[in-house]
Amino acid sequence: MKILIWPGSLRQGSLNRKLARAIDAKLFERGVETDHINFRDYDMPLYDGDIEADQGLPAATTALAEKISNCDGLVLVTPEYNFGVPGPVKNAIDWMSRIKPYPTTGKTCFLASAAPGLVGGGRGLIALRPTLSFMGAWLVPDSFSLAQAGQAFGEDGGLVSEDIDNMLDGMLDQFLAAAESLKLS
Amino acid sequence: MKILIWPGSLRQGSLNRKLARAIDAKLFERGVETDHINFRDYDMPLYDGDIEADQGLPAATTALAEKISNCDGLVLVTPEYNFGVPGPVKNAIDWMSRIKPYPTTGKTCFLASAAPGLVGGGRGLIALRPTLSFMGAWLVPDSFSLAQAGQAFGEDGGLVSEDIDNMLDGMLDQFLAAAESLKLS
Amino acid sequence: MKILIWPGSLRQGSLNRKLARAIDAKLFERGVETDHINFRDYDMPLYDGDIEADQGLPAATTALAEKISNCDGLVLVTPEYNFGVPGPVKNAIDWMSRIKPYPTTGKTCFLASAAPGLVGGGRGLIALRPTLSFMGAWLVPDSFSLAQAGQAFGEDGGLVSEDIDNMLDGMLDQFLAAAESLKLS
Amino acid sequence: MKILIWPGSLRQGSLNRKLARAIDAKLFERGVETDHINFRDYDMPLYDGDIEADQGLPAATTALAEKISNCDGLVLVTPEYNFGVPGPVKNAIDWMSRIKPYPTTGKTCFLASAAPGLVGGGRGLIALRPTLSFMGAWLVPDSFSLAQAGQAFGEDGGLVSEDIDNMLDGMLDQFLAAAESLKLS
Repeated sequence: MKILIWPGSLRQGSLNRKLARAIDAKLFERGVETDHINFRDYDMPLYDGDIEADQGLPAATTALAEKISNCDGLVLVTPEYNFGVPGPVKNAIDWMSRIKPYPTTGKTCFLASAAPGLVGGGRGLIALRPTLSFMGAWLVPDSFSLAQAGQAFGEDGGLVSEDIDNMLDGMLDQFLAAAESLKLS
Repeated sequence: MKILIWPGSLRQGSLNRKLARAIDAKLFERGVETDHINFRDYDMPLYDGDIEADQGLPAATTALAEKISNCDGLVLVTPEYNFGVPGPVKNAIDWMSRIKPYPTTGKTCFLASAAPGLVGGGRGLIALRPTLSFMGAWLVPDSFSLAQAGQAFGEDGGLVSEDIDNMLDGMLDQFLAAAESLKLS
Repeated sequence: MKILIWPGSLRQGSLNRKLARAIDAKLFERGVETDHINFRDYDMPLYDGDIEADQGLPAATTALAEKISNCDGLVLVTPEYNFGVPGPVKNAIDWMSRIKPYPTTGKTCFLASAAPGLVGGGRGLIALRPTLSFMGAWLVPDSFSLAQAGQAFGEDGGLVSEDIDNMLDGMLDQFLAAAESLKLS
Repeated sequence: MKILIWPGSLRQGSLNRKLARAIDAKLFERGVETDHINFRDYDMPLYDGDIEADQGLPAATTALAEKISNCDGLVLVTPEYNFGVPGPVKNAIDWMSRIKPYPTTGKTCFLASAAPGLVGGGRGLIALRPTLSFMGAWLVPDSFSLAQAGQAFGEDGGLVSEDIDNMLDGMLDQFLAAAESLKLS
């Protein structure tokens, strides 16, 4: 099992990058191999069909797509921007959608978000579902939205609330079991 | 393998009921046991928390929930009403959401729709996804929206377009394989 | 100016009915005539095209549609059920969509919700927007979602938090000004 | 009255740019001043909070925001990418959301799309609504989705189907009347 962790924020101090690290630690504890990217290493131009026609796909697009193709499951940890998917995340997905079959096809995908406010980024994850489903991903039914995330992490990077930590554990177990099963289907 | 087929239209001559029959025939050919309900047999009042407090869940709710609990996969074939989920379908789901764990939890679910127009009911299926995901269902990434459905069926009830028929076959194979795999996870 | 207030919950003790009352009081203070219905008085069967063909529209449908046609603006205060629009609300809308032009066409509409949890019902309001837009309503850009609504109301029925109360005041002023303007357009 | 026309595709031969031109011609016939941008002139980096903290807003962001602030109404003509908002459009909106009040606040906004297939890009417009509403825009209830757009335009750039052309005329009249009314509210 190899799980790709994609934090959807470019800002280095992002709460979503913190949450991605906490998830990474939990997967490591379970003996799962992770590939945890820094989204900033995959800089792409804004999608433009003329660029694609002239120059083909950007190297960052094919590199990210290959990472996704090679994993057994994907964890996308992404903020909500203005009730929707962050532009940079959608832009990367739009570029990758030019590759057939889609790199996401058949991949089990777990969605998570963190935000300072009460809603925790959940509306952005809802907005992301139709796109990833269209691109062939099996989305874990539950997603994890961490509200008031500014106060949610301890010094060791873990979640301070035991209840919330247990909830995340349960979702990750469900994710890993499904990724294992769907790999064979 | 036992697959529940739930046509979401109450109207007996509905194109969605026709599509449900076509899907049923395809599952039968594959040797899959189907349980194909008439939604009209599951008449529930409009959801009202006071009715629930006074009288508990309606018999139709527990009957439909039990059907879902007992199946290995669910095919929901439903029209789109006004860019959204039909009121009767949502009402049945809302009643069933009062049962914990949700009857839909862990069930693999394939969404289909039929409509006379060009769009084929696809916007209603998109609107349904967040609700069924919240209620624990594994949604097949692809969904099947049959446009111009008034002209789509032959005398034997099958789809006249070979291309569209093959597309549906591929989706059903994917659905059955996943339902089998996820049952074990 | 005459504003119709439609609480979308059938349960008599609903937090959404409380919020509707608080909004009603604010409109009264502004000298605005309100028509505040009890949704339970508009009991309709589940939408079924065969019922419509045999018996026409239910009396409750035409009565509610007439209320909407006669108002200058609509306030819909509705819970979120399972990340979506409550079945009873969608069912009433689906029945009314059989009337052309739609009773909602050209009406300015303000959406509000209340819920015990942190999210406040906002996902249900997002799910409602495509439907009401399709049916011709001008939706006030902001909507009001009251989180932790169990603790939000004082003994006089008003909102205890001054900040939240001011926010609601601003939205209602925007709603009334737009309803006045759009009436003339 | 000054209407900003923003085609959301960067590709110069885009069907959405063709549709934007057709709408521009219709507004010109009505004596309305238009400001029709080429989105390629507003090249922004992918949104990154660290860039914002270090360098402030990109010049293209403030330029586009100023265009929006100065118009009386906005026509956004945008393709659908993978059932969602194109990454470049969302990225521009995300950058502009850092300006308070949002440049879109109080602006009447008409959404249109064109696509080669049967659906016409309508799912992307539905995905755009929550974001623009959150950012204070008054969205015209109807939106215009041009299906099979590869065959839809005549040599003069207008729509060949008289029915579809009339439908668009009606929507634009409604848009202009509302933009006029809401300007005063």
